[in-house]
Amino acid sequence: MLKYQQIAGEIEKYIEENELKQGSKLPVIESLMKQYRVSKSTITKTLELLEKKGIIFQVRGSGIFVRRQKRKGYISLLSNQGFKKDLEDYILTSKIIELDVRKPSEEVALHLNMDLNEDVYYVKRIRYINGQTLCLEESYYNKAIITYLNKEIVSESIFHYITEALGLKVGFSDVYLLVDKLNEEEASYLGLEKNSPKLLVESLFHLTNGQPFDFSKVTYNYQQSQFFIQANSLFF
Amino acid sequence: MLKYQQIAGEIEKYIEENELKQGSKLPVIESLMKQYRVSKSTITKTLELLEKKGIIFQVRGSGIFVRRQKRKGYISLLSNQGFKKDLEDYILTSKIIELDVRKPSEEVALHLNMDLNEDVYYVKRIRYINGQTLCLEESYYNKAIITYLNKEIVSESIFHYITEALGLKVGFSDVYLLVDKLNEEEASYLGLEKNSPKLLVESLFHLTNGQPFDFSKVTYNYQQSQFFIQANSLFF
Repeated sequence: MLKYQQIAGEIEKYIEENELKQGSKLPVIESLMKQYRVSKSTITKTLELLEKKGIIFQVRGSGIFVRRQKRKGYISLLSNQGFKKDLEDYILTSKIIELDVRKPSEEVALHLNMDLNEDVYYVKRIRYINGQTLCLEESYYNKAIITYLNKEIVSESIFHYITEALGLKVGFSDVYLLVDKLNEEEASYLGLEKNSPKLLVESLFHLTNGQPFDFSKVTYNYQQSQFFIQANSLFF
Repeated sequence: MLKYQQIAGEIEKYIEENELKQGSKLPVIESLMKQYRVSKSTITKTLELLEKKGIIFQVRGSGIFVRRQKRKGYISLLSNQGFKKDLEDYILTSKIIELDVRKPSEEVALHLNMDLNEDVYYVKRIRYINGQTLCLEESYYNKAIITYLNKEIVSESIFHYITEALGLKVGFSDVYLLVDKLNEEEASYLGLEKNSPKLLVESLFHLTNGQPFDFSKVTYNYQQSQFFIQANSLFF
């Protein structure tokens, strides 16, 4: 972890622990430089990262302010880190249904930029929140990149393993959302009735070099599905 | 529009018109500086903006590459610019159901940081895509900020009016997604059966100075609901 990332983590923790509200003013850049004994460019990077993550917003000529969404129990849709962080007060477990190495379907091969005769790791699991079904997850990993997976890894955070153990750098992702009705199989996995509302989130994760490595399809139990996204301005 | 924004627009247009695929390499920074006759810092800002918008990704030591999602007909969930841009091939219309000035409910006042005796503009409209219902939209605008609205403005792009005519600068937004079943009223507006799947997207838009000015609740017709989000890495 680089210095500016470490400082960002400390500022984020400070905001959370002190329960600072949206709009609370943070110290000016010069004070932060003194406090953390780093250069202006390091603090600038720190603030850029915090802004990107939706923790602060900067107003030119006015200062740095806390950004905070007001609702509890919502899952961050764009956090690559899985649910752990946003749902700290909840007990999350998962049950592995399938874990194997297979050839990709045409759809999967297309998304992962692979040939049909190459191998993918396929993981199917149900995730539970406080004992209730949260989602049914099917993931396809390019085996040339994610070279090894086992039940132990898959029952924990796969992304933690990918970044820490394999040392890969996760970059951008494309996320698709579709709303439909549950078919019989999905309903039975989630413990819901057939034709109940279905939220399908398909994600394609890339390494920082642009290589796609993980294509995931997650079907949520609509009764547990509350998401939030902190968006930055995309305006010209 | 500033120079770097203008160049970003030109590069985006170039990528679209030439149908460049994901992973296509763009000219190096030095070439872009020459081509547009601007400084390195302007090009750096241009690239930052394009990266934020999910148009390119940069690989350190390797270059600048096109980023492009592969699916057609998906609506960008985080584009403040409404649907127009993403759905250029579709005909979008809207019907205004209600437009009035009223006092905010407690929920609306809380989100918009207002007192209960202040005024909001309330807009309720149905939006259609190729003649089919796309969504039922209810929006609340703080009248102290959005000082004037009429039927003509509301039947077009409200955000275009806000940025161009009122000259306001739109900043970040908080977006909440919930999945549920349609009640009778919603179903009738959307031309669907009661208890059909419902996707509710609630958005709170802020000015760049952090002031919330628009709280919107949009209920989508699930048959037309295909969204995408281009996410950047939020990893440490």
